[in-house]
Amino acid sequence: MANLTEALTQARTRVEAALDQALPDATLAPERLHEAMRYAVLAPGKRLRPFLVYQAGALFNARASDLDSPACAVEMIHAYSLIHDDLPSMDDDDLRRGQPTCHRAFDESTAILAGDALQALAFQHIAEAGPANAECRLRMIQALGLAVGSRGMAGGQALDLNAVNHRLDANELEAMHRYKTGALILASLRLGSLCAANEADAEQCNALDHYGQCIGLAFQVQDDILDVTGDSLDMGKTSGADARREKPTYPGLMGLAASRRFARELRDEAVCAVEGFGPRADMLRSLADYIISRER
Amino acid sequence: MANLTEALTQARTRVEAALDQALPDATLAPERLHEAMRYAVLAPGKRLRPFLVYQAGALFNARASDLDSPACAVEMIHAYSLIHDDLPSMDDDDLRRGQPTCHRAFDESTAILAGDALQALAFQHIAEAGPANAECRLRMIQALGLAVGSRGMAGGQALDLNAVNHRLDANELEAMHRYKTGALILASLRLGSLCAANEADAEQCNALDHYGQCIGLAFQVQDDILDVTGDSLDMGKTSGADARREKPTYPGLMGLAASRRFARELRDEAVCAVEGFGPRADMLRSLADYIISRER
Repeated sequence: MANLTEALTQARTRVEAALDQALPDATLAPERLHEAMRYAVLAPGKRLRPFLVYQAGALFNARASDLDSPACAVEMIHAYSLIHDDLPSMDDDDLRRGQPTCHRAFDESTAILAGDALQALAFQHIAEAGPANAECRLRMIQALGLAVGSRGMAGGQALDLNAVNHRLDANELEAMHRYKTGALILASLRLGSLCAANEADAEQCNALDHYGQCIGLAFQVQDDILDVTGDSLDMGKTSGADARREKPTYPGLMGLAASRRFARELRDEAVCAVEGFGPRADMLRSLADYIISRER
Repeated sequence: MANLTEALTQARTRVEAALDQALPDATLAPERLHEAMRYAVLAPGKRLRPFLVYQAGALFNARASDLDSPACAVEMIHAYSLIHDDLPSMDDDDLRRGQPTCHRAFDESTAILAGDALQALAFQHIAEAGPANAECRLRMIQALGLAVGSRGMAGGQALDLNAVNHRLDANELEAMHRYKTGALILASLRLGSLCAANEADAEQCNALDHYGQCIGLAFQVQDDILDVTGDSLDMGKTSGADARREKPTYPGLMGLAASRRFARELRDEAVCAVEGFGPRADMLRSLADYIISRER
């Protein structure tokens, strides 16, 4: 996976430079709010969602410079969702990405507002920069809005919170993750493909969606596995936290061995889904491998 | 002000019907989240921001049907900001618009997520509906994003929270309100004017901005006055709450009589600002009167 590591690093470097530019300077008033926004977004991260934007765009020959704005937007949305998920009234987490969560490093109200402001900035950023075609930017905003709202990420977090201390079956658990993390992963791939002058046809869109669904769920299954087997330092968050809160997890539902098998099945399905793209989708295939073999 | 009352009722009826359509049905999953979103948005309200969208649009002969989408969007944003402002870690309010605040009627995490989802829906709604011209919708999204983010509403709330127990001078207090409530009022007027085929020229934009700044601040001054003189039932929220939390207010800063004088000066300035629009701006002038004479 030498190539993948290189490609991930390249995308990370690129989007982090673009994010640094897109985020308001911490010397601008209100300074503390801007500091909190930068703290949450620029904390070390894998930048998987921006990577998906760049890779999906490359499949359809989109210009890299057009992809920076959606790549920044999905990472801002991701950061905002982590800030709000970590809040005391939500998952009440102290550690995120190896450092204190936003409300611990600042305070609760600043954390809520930093999340709110990041969401606004994400939409504004796509409206202001990206491909020249206005219709295309509008379609990106529609797709992102759908992925982020009550029938997407926010809805998934609501289902997740309702699930604490409830026994979910595999279908319900999958539905929850499809909203909570799957929707933004799908949107990242869509936003990338929407940046291209040559539009993806229906079959290609379905293939990317299918790939996104599989890696999104595989990512979550692997996260649940690491929550049981990993340690807090490696994960950058408190390990065993989900089990302690009696949140439904895959190892809890089907055991560790079956969870590992399920993750591999999802990887295989993801690899098959992008078969039609040929060698240009090699990186997406390597990513599916990486997702289920990562140790943090 | 018989005409104004009629026009306000007309706009309110129109936008409430559009909001009812635009909000996800409460029977759709996640039901509780959708219920909370509808609860917060459809609670009785003056719908001043949608009214400004419709009035500014009418100044430039925009089609009423094109104005429904930005009118809904600004009201969704307003409702989301009230939900988050009322949270325990923010202003910790129990009553809003005469009924329990969202986190009291539901719970804190549902309230946070309902606000988050409403923000996403507002941007998505403009991207999906409104004037046919895509460039124009993009400009609306840009203006709304700017008004809502860290250099607008969210930034203003951050300044407001930092101001608790601090003594602000009149300039600092005005700056805080310009961000916190002024920005969305200005954006409402801009969004309305952006819907028209005949674009507003720079002078007309400045006139509307100036009007918006004056009525925004006048609204706040009158709110502060009512917080001192009103009672909780009439205001629909706990009266004297700002003073008790030692939030800076105009009566606290300059006394009640000077605050009333200041409100009248702002009204006069607002009326002058839209002079160039002639009788077509009569309703905006009546609104400026209403804002400083209202008793709730």
